Amino acid sequence: MAEDLLGTGREVFFCRRPGRGVGVRRSLVSINDLTNEEVEAVFVGADEMASLLRRGGPLDLCRGKILCTLFYEPSTRTRLSFESAMHRLGGAVLSTENARVSSSAAKGETIRDSVRVVQHYADLLVMRHYLDGSTRVAAECARIPVISGGDGTHEHPTQTLCDLYTMRKEKGKVQGLHVALCGDLRYGRTVHSLAYGLARFGARITCVAPPGFQLPAHVRERLLREYGCRIREFSRLDEAIAGEASAPRRRSGDGLYQDLIEQFDVLYLTRVQKERLPRGEGPALAAESFRLSRALLRKAQEDALVLHPLPRVNELDYDVDEDKRAGYFRQASYGVAVRMALTALFLGVVRSGGFAPGPRPRLSVRSVRVRGVRCINDRCVSLSEPDVRPRFVPAAEAGGLRCAYCEVEVRPPTRGRGELFR
Amino acid sequence: MAEDLLGTGREVFFCRRPGRGVGVRRSLVSINDLTNEEVEAVFVGADEMASLLRRGGPLDLCRGKILCTLFYEPSTRTRLSFESAMHRLGGAVLSTENARVSSSAAKGETIRDSVRVVQHYADLLVMRHYLDGSTRVAAECARIPVISGGDGTHEHPTQTLCDLYTMRKEKGKVQGLHVALCGDLRYGRTVHSLAYGLARFGARITCVAPPGFQLPAHVRERLLREYGCRIREFSRLDEAIAGEASAPRRRSGDGLYQDLIEQFDVLYLTRVQKERLPRGEGPALAAESFRLSRALLRKAQEDALVLHPLPRVNELDYDVDEDKRAGYFRQASYGVAVRMALTALFLGVVRSGGFAPGPRPRLSVRSVRVRGVRCINDRCVSLSEPDVRPRFVPAAEAGGLRCAYCEVEVRPPTRGRGELFR
Amino acid sequence: MAEDLLGTGREVFFCRRPGRGVGVRRSLVSINDLTNEEVEAVFVGADEMASLLRRGGPLDLCRGKILCTLFYEPSTRTRLSFESAMHRLGGAVLSTENARVSSSAAKGETIRDSVRVVQHYADLLVMRHYLDGSTRVAAECARIPVISGGDGTHEHPTQTLCDLYTMRKEKGKVQGLHVALCGDLRYGRTVHSLAYGLARFGARITCVAPPGFQLPAHVRERLLREYGCRIREFSRLDEAIAGEASAPRRRSGDGLYQDLIEQFDVLYLTRVQKERLPRGEGPALAAESFRLSRALLRKAQEDALVLHPLPRVNELDYDVDEDKRAGYFRQASYGVAVRMALTALFLGVVRSGGFAPGPRPRLSVRSVRVRGVRCINDRCVSLSEPDVRPRFVPAAEAGGLRCAYCEVEVRPPTRGRGELFR
Repeated sequence: MAEDLLGTGREVFFCRRPGRGVGVRRSLVSINDLTNEEVEAVFVGADEMASLLRRGGPLDLCRGKILCTLFYEPSTRTRLSFESAMHRLGGAVLSTENARVSSSAAKGETIRDSVRVVQHYADLLVMRHYLDGSTRVAAECARIPVISGGDGTHEHPTQTLCDLYTMRKEKGKVQGLHVALCGDLRYGRTVHSLAYGLARFGARITCVAPPGFQLPAHVRERLLREYGCRIREFSRLDEAIAGEASAPRRRSGDGLYQDLIEQFDVLYLTRVQKERLPRGEGPALAAESFRLSRALLRKAQEDALVLHPLPRVNELDYDVDEDKRAGYFRQASYGVAVRMALTALFLGVVRSGGFAPGPRPRLSVRSVRVRGVRCINDRCVSLSEPDVRPRFVPAAEAGGLRCAYCEVEVRPPTRGRGELFR
Repeated sequence: MAEDLLGTGREVFFCRRPGRGVGVRRSLVSINDLTNEEVEAVFVGADEMASLLRRGGPLDLCRGKILCTLFYEPSTRTRLSFESAMHRLGGAVLSTENARVSSSAAKGETIRDSVRVVQHYADLLVMRHYLDGSTRVAAECARIPVISGGDGTHEHPTQTLCDLYTMRKEKGKVQGLHVALCGDLRYGRTVHSLAYGLARFGARITCVAPPGFQLPAHVRERLLREYGCRIREFSRLDEAIAGEASAPRRRSGDGLYQDLIEQFDVLYLTRVQKERLPRGEGPALAAESFRLSRALLRKAQEDALVLHPLPRVNELDYDVDEDKRAGYFRQASYGVAVRMALTALFLGVVRSGGFAPGPRPRLSVRSVRVRGVRCINDRCVSLSEPDVRPRFVPAAEAGGLRCAYCEVEVRPPTRGRGELFR
Repeated sequence: MAEDLLGTGREVFFCRRPGRGVGVRRSLVSINDLTNEEVEAVFVGADEMASLLRRGGPLDLCRGKILCTLFYEPSTRTRLSFESAMHRLGGAVLSTENARVSSSAAKGETIRDSVRVVQHYADLLVMRHYLDGSTRVAAECARIPVISGGDGTHEHPTQTLCDLYTMRKEKGKVQGLHVALCGDLRYGRTVHSLAYGLARFGARITCVAPPGFQLPAHVRERLLREYGCRIREFSRLDEAIAGEASAPRRRSGDGLYQDLIEQFDVLYLTRVQKERLPRGEGPALAAESFRLSRALLRKAQEDALVLHPLPRVNELDYDVDEDKRAGYFRQASYGVAVRMALTALFLGVVRSGGFAPGPRPRLSVRSVRVRGVRCINDRCVSLSEPDVRPRFVPAAEAGGLRCAYCEVEVRPPTRGRGELFR
């Protein structure tokens, strides 16, 4: 039944679905929308795509299919690599590079209205938007699959897939890796999805961020409660690498961290998201505390892997590029193969044992409205869009609520939970 | 001779022209550039395209052809549905989503100069521009077909085709329908072309607009003189629906309107075009007078059809979406099939008995310069572009002149007409 | 061996390379990156492409290949004609029409970083950027061919190829032509590459520019020293055409210019690059001194050819268009064929005897860093990009240095040259 349609001569992973592929009726907004098996399926798919690309020549898997990219924020890697992936697969692309200005959003159209229209023009929608939870809104109302290209400070799941794929490819596996997440961990959406991904695959996480830029509390607590992942935190990269006793928050007596703390397998750097800073907060000084210079890198592990979702600004010196541990350009180069696999899987033109074609139960399915409660996150889509109403899912703690869009945790007013929900 | 090349198994409407299709050497700037038979030909074509789309798979009708979209104003539906149509037909697309900033217009190039260059790069040009009559300028100088995607406050003919197609599809036919045009009828280009289309196909029109936003006098008079269509006017939607006696301008003794005025078959809503308002005019209050709420809709006819060209802002409540009479998202969904038919017809890759491939006599062909007369419309392209000179055609009234570009009527100075023309 | 794969039935110029084409590993940033034989090869290729276009139908030469256009400045002709060329060749396009705003450049990414990423998404990069020498930076770090679509005030080599192709097509050959370069010769990049091209092919050059807009000294000196081309200069076009004795800088005793100076074969006009003027310099007045009106054109040679890279602003009257000598729209129309030939050659899908597929020794290969010397050109990429360090090549004069990026000449401090270089 499973034919070697891609002709890779390897164990058949992909086979064209009977008849033409149909959209799989599911979306990718959070890395948690995929199971671990599905993440693996994407990686196996990416390997196949990469070997097809090396052999050159056009593929026709997506002939007749249309990808629409709708970007409300600047992008180089995400938009162009998705579009490149679709072209390599033989499909067509509708592109909007600056939807904030050149789409009907400029005339006041809501996300829901735009998406309910655009879904008739394409078979797959990749969207980036500046509001947290915005791409969840799109996924909820679209009849075609929606893949998030990043939503505000919330998540960036396809970047995380590229990150994990890079670690798996260059380090063999993600499990057991010790990863330092450095930089603006508060506003950087890539590290939020990556932290979940790392925790789920059994990596250890150390966070390095100056005061004001630490991982949001709701992310840290969710890592602990849902995935049993306890993170260690430093405020300066040199202290994290050197393991200095003066490092604040260092819990030196903790049994989990008996080995030398400078033994990072992966240094994952991110820039200060200056476009998301509240007015008055200066980004320049902050970056100094986690800047990776060639000198500092000398103190790191011999076979450490330096990653960065890019663009970098001043937290990663240009002369680090020449160090063999610099992996960030390879990381970017894997984007096309990973996104080819995603595109083919979500369009349903290939299938994989690990990837469920039907819709999965989503948080939003079980989400409810709660009397008198609105999200506390200023950037949440539920506060800005007139046609989105606050919805919540129960968080792990008793009485806790999590916004169904931006996933920030909200404490409901002190009343019985029964009377709040409706 | 007429082969069933599309394989629809129905009465053959389209057949590929002998040899490869050649541009039909005509353009679509006003809905009045098409005869009623040609509008019907587009609709039959759209039906065929829709059935082809449902059967899935790529079409190759436009293989090797290039569509160029040149948009000087924001767009979601028009640009993306045209581009989607071209991709579905197997052609390629050159796209400029923000030509005001990223084309040579930013350096001061005129429309004529830009079009005379772009015509060498594509086979069909779809253009949107902020000046009234601008797309007529493009059509005049291009050797490839030009289709307007909207020009200032003048017209938006392909939207009108989608609107009429929706009414025909959901109501059986346009003739005899009673349509309420509501909202900003002054600056909204879609209602201008729609009013002509409705009048020509024998619909009845009621206009609902607050003071300052009524249908321009030259449109109203042309409807009457050229198509014998007398419109009734209200300033508030609730009054129009309720048929209150207090409604201003209501001519209750008029034989034409003996039936209950709340019997609207179609409620066509439009937003306030706030980007076209003179400074100081506030849009928010105006919209209240024609806002369609769910409560108000309860009073309307059971099988009324609510349409809107979208985007909506605050004149159409979001909870109306759940009413079965809400037809605006279906209206948007028909855009691809209608624009596939238009693209195929104007590229000449299909032909239809009803659609004349050769150039039709155009207003502009017979237009003349008139000594000392310039257009009185501030937004007219003839006042802004240094290489466009005012031209006019005789309007119906003796001595009347109509601008050949924006079609606003101008009264010439009181002299003999003979000495004015040259 | 050389098959008539394009089926033009003429002496075979192109033949598909064995196996699939591979990028030729060279770039086009300056017209001086091509030898005269290679320029001729592009022209022969353009002739073939034009005849293929006339016969209609899609070509498949670039099927499966991807062109990425990355434009940091507005463009109509260059971007759209390259994209059209790629579509006509059967390839796909990734487009960024406003990279300054909608790419990661908006977040502070350097050119090098962007290019090192984008090279993984496409097979050929066409880039326009506002900094002088920027496209050289891209070409240096990319593993795919980079073609400049214009870099600041430096050069615009593909425009020059179109210009020379037009002269060759309409005048038979470039050698011996007398060309007047008029307008903003200081900030206009097209005239800089064109002047080199004309000099190398043996044309005579007269420059017409008002004070403050003359050809930069380093270009004028290089023309003389490297190509033996002495230019004559006027400050007003009417004087140049009329040959008035009052013309400043006129060297009337010069043996080279004994014939009547009004005998221009080509009048090449350019607009004032007002976006590059230092604040306070007014462009309007300047343009008057080289404005070509129909009246002035009457005094020019009967078979003169008027060219302009377009867009024009106010230096070329619109009524000149009707004169048979107006060649600028034909000039623009040749852009697709010329860029099809360039695309096919640089992607390596065709080959030509005259065009070397391998990398050529480049200035930058031999460039060196010089202690304490930085470029003196405020617009040079080496002063703005944190990851570009100043590099120089020896200029003709003893001790002279030329910036490896913007090619402006720099005088090193008065010390021995040996101790400067490192």
